[in-house]
Order: sequence, then structure tokens, then C-alpha cells
Amino acid sequence: MRTKADILPECPVATTVALIGSKWKLLIMRNLMSRPWRFNELLKSIDGISQKVLTDSLRSMEADGIVARTVYDEVPPRVEYSLTELGQSMQPIIKSMEVWGTAYKERLQSAGEV
Amino acid sequence: MRTKADILPECPVATTVALIGSKWKLLIMRNLMSRPWRFNELLKSIDGISQKVLTDSLRSMEADGIVARTVYDEVPPRVEYSLTELGQSMQPIIKSMEVWGTAYKERLQSAGEV
Repeated sequence: MRTKADILPECPVATTVALIGSKWKLLIMRNLMSRPWRFNELLKSIDGISQKVLTDSLRSMEADGIVARTVYDEVPPRVEYSLTELGQSMQPIIKSMEVWGTAYKERLQSAGEV
Repeated sequence: MRTKADILPECPVATTVALIGSKWKLLIMRNLMSRPWRFNELLKSIDGISQKVLTDSLRSMEADGIVARTVYDEVPPRVEYSLTELGQSMQPIIKSMEVWGTAYKERLQSAGEV
């Protein structure tokens, strides 16, 4: 039987890229790092994402065990998306992107002031 | 005049994602981290990438100041792609993906052995 480990790329970077290597998944991860989010909140917060792409991305991340979907038994039912423990373990990746982006913006701003 | 700093997203993670938030750019970065590469070497090494996507990605990374294209005056001319200083400064991002991917693969392999 082929296991998940067999179908992943040999390279560890490519393995990570296979799971979250898309603009949208990275932005969803960024949001979910802080707290659980509802679908419509994510849709409004992530600039330019379509309903279909958000649905597909969340499903794919759920299938990969990164995101958990919780339905609360309320009227109307409340659905929340959160990171699993596996998803939380990706925090250093999002953090390194935040650190880099912050330094880059500062660099551009200083350059603009000259 | 609108500067580069003005058109970037407010969020630093989104800024980084705007520059390297694609499967292909991340895999190109991974390769270039170690040494300069020639176009055909990259094409062969990155599984599934098309000539057009590789060309477009490299051009976009060159425009963003991440990748440098060097033409050596030989017969036939040799063209190499390498990371600029700015591109090199993204090493922690690729490294964090490598660390995560390695741990994830180990975890799957252990799970498979049970």
C-alpha cells in the first residue's frame, strides 16, 4: 500500500511547498495563527480571494491535517476554522515571512526617504 | 509618485507572499540558495515546471530584485541565475520550510511503522 510518506517529494522543502505552497494557503495560515476564524471573516479579510478558492484551499488543508473545521450546534450553526497541532507547528515559517517582510518594507521606506 | 513601498500590502507576511508566494518561486529559491544555476539545470531539477513558468518566475524575481541574471561572454554564451543579497536574506524562510518538512516526513514515517 502506498502511504502518504511515499507520495511526498524527497526534498523536505518541496514537501512543505506541497502542503502550503500557494499564495492563498499562506495567507489563510497567517490568519489562523492568531485564533479560529469563520469562513466569511476569512473571505473579507483576505484581499482578492474568491469563495471557491477559499473553499478549495480550506478543504485541501483539512485533508492534509493542517486545518480543523468545527461546527458548533447553534442556530444558525456556527462553523469555525482553526489550525491543528500540525498546522500550529508551521508557525516558524509564517514568522520568518513576517520578519522578512517587515525588514523589506523598512528597507524600501528608508530608500524612499533618500 | 507611487513607490514600491506604497503598492505593497500593509501586512508583512502578505508582502513576502507577494514576492515569493508560489510553489514554483519557492522551489526556485530552494535551488538558488546553494549556488548559481543555469536555466536548463533548473528546468530539469524542478519536477513539473514548464519552460514558460520558469521563464516568467525568473523574470518576476529579477524584477523584484531577488534574482540576478548573469551572462558570461563565452561561445555559446553562458547564462546563470543567482540570488541577490536580498534573495539571500530569505534564507531563514526556506530553512524553516526545510526544518518543518524534515520533521513532518519523519513523523509520517514513524506513524507508518506502527
